[in-house]
Amino acid sequence: MSPLGGGSLLLAWQLKGKHVLIVGGGDVASGRIESVLAADAHVTLISPSNGLHPLTKRFLDGPHNITYHDRVFGGVEDLVHVDLVLTAIDDVAQSRVICNLCRELKIPVNVADIPESCDFYFGSQIRDGPLQIMISTNGNSPKLANIIRKKIEQSLPEHAGDAISRVGELRTKLKERAPGVGGEIGKRRMRWMIDVCTSWEMEELALLDDQMIRKLLDDGWETNTVPSAVELGAKSRQTYNAMPNAPGVLVATLGFVVGAACASLFLLTRRR
Amino acid sequence: MSPLGGGSLLLAWQLKGKHVLIVGGGDVASGRIESVLAADAHVTLISPSNGLHPLTKRFLDGPHNITYHDRVFGGVEDLVHVDLVLTAIDDVAQSRVICNLCRELKIPVNVADIPESCDFYFGSQIRDGPLQIMISTNGNSPKLANIIRKKIEQSLPEHAGDAISRVGELRTKLKERAPGVGGEIGKRRMRWMIDVCTSWEMEELALLDDQMIRKLLDDGWETNTVPSAVELGAKSRQTYNAMPNAPGVLVATLGFVVGAACASLFLLTRRR
Repeated sequence: MSPLGGGSLLLAWQLKGKHVLIVGGGDVASGRIESVLAADAHVTLISPSNGLHPLTKRFLDGPHNITYHDRVFGGVEDLVHVDLVLTAIDDVAQSRVICNLCRELKIPVNVADIPESCDFYFGSQIRDGPLQIMISTNGNSPKLANIIRKKIEQSLPEHAGDAISRVGELRTKLKERAPGVGGEIGKRRMRWMIDVCTSWEMEELALLDDQMIRKLLDDGWETNTVPSAVELGAKSRQTYNAMPNAPGVLVATLGFVVGAACASLFLLTRRR
Repeated sequence: MSPLGGGSLLLAWQLKGKHVLIVGGGDVASGRIESVLAADAHVTLISPSNGLHPLTKRFLDGPHNITYHDRVFGGVEDLVHVDLVLTAIDDVAQSRVICNLCRELKIPVNVADIPESCDFYFGSQIRDGPLQIMISTNGNSPKLANIIRKKIEQSLPEHAGDAISRVGELRTKLKERAPGVGGEIGKRRMRWMIDVCTSWEMEELALLDDQMIRKLLDDGWETNTVPSAVELGAKSRQTYNAMPNAPGVLVATLGFVVGAACASLFLLTRRR
């Protein structure tokens, strides 16, 4: 083990157009379905219909890309053209059979509740549009992962997801205007994008509409500068700037009033 | 695409005892080396020595599990017994060759800077002992991922990593005392662990030493209750409870003093 060791390799696995097999239809399986649908996978679900959780049923009834087989796992023929396998069934022996087949076929597999049969684990997750955050305790405490997730959710900058979407759009438009992979142009693009991201607030980036993006490229990129959001005519800036630090201001004001009241009372009482 | 879609499947990939091939030795490669060493992988690095980044050299010189070949990628024989491939070289054609070989052999691969040649992406990461957090913007803005990472780092509960380690230890000891997979005992263990995690503060969990763990199991688990940290004799509790909300208290005090001063000045001036 390396001195750095003891952890996992956290990854954002790409499933667009890939085939995922989920064996089981209970509570845990419904969570798995949600996770892989979020990554645009083709899902095949194998589970007897009498064991389906209401949430799993809702996914099957919804407008999702799911092929459903009302039966138990049938063997190696169920793994043809499958890119990833997730099982969530109570039958430990059957789980191990599926895991072994996957290992032979080199298909990544996760078996719920049997860590040694997992090529990868899941973590506690946050999603806000293109922003995804995973919290892993490396199996030590799912509950603490959850508590930390909630704390992070509360502390995330508002509109972070929107800001990321709009910056992604700006980046795409910039690449159209100044194309080329790597080299000097790639470096200049990267530096300018960093300047934009560091000189604008998250809330301002979230306001970037198509017109502002065009103006930012015309006035900013072309002259290698970064105009402010106000210069580009960002609207409704006041809505988030009106209370720069509301709790702090409130507390200070309250302190001021109480302080003034106490001093007045003291002095006025002594005057008589 | 599902209505939920547009994202990735975030995973904690398990690399303990697995073989990872890294092709390239520059800046990006050094980051990859760090990430996979953190997951206890056996690393093989292929890169001409004249292209090694100082950080890469430091890893090669350190006490790590790295096999180094001073040459360029040699073909399919370099992929024998390899479980994961990461390339970070400037040669786009060579990168594509490696990617295609990996796809044929069903070895998961990431090619730096060529998204379509990646089975998975990396994200911005936080590590605190057993706690790992990944922030992904799904390729939209690495800079914003970084900015969000810093904000999360600042907002994380202190001692979160220690708390997770200690709770993991408590969980292991509890399983030794009340063994059995699933069923009633599994449910009772889970409920009690959740009670402990929700009724103790993160800082208190971080203080759990072996003696306290034994007492918590004796006095708590056996009677299906959760004694407080103080009841178990947690030490140095005062160090983190002395200033429950330091900035708020400071701001209120400052407000009070200024308010009192203003009122006094006003009244004393008027008196003359």
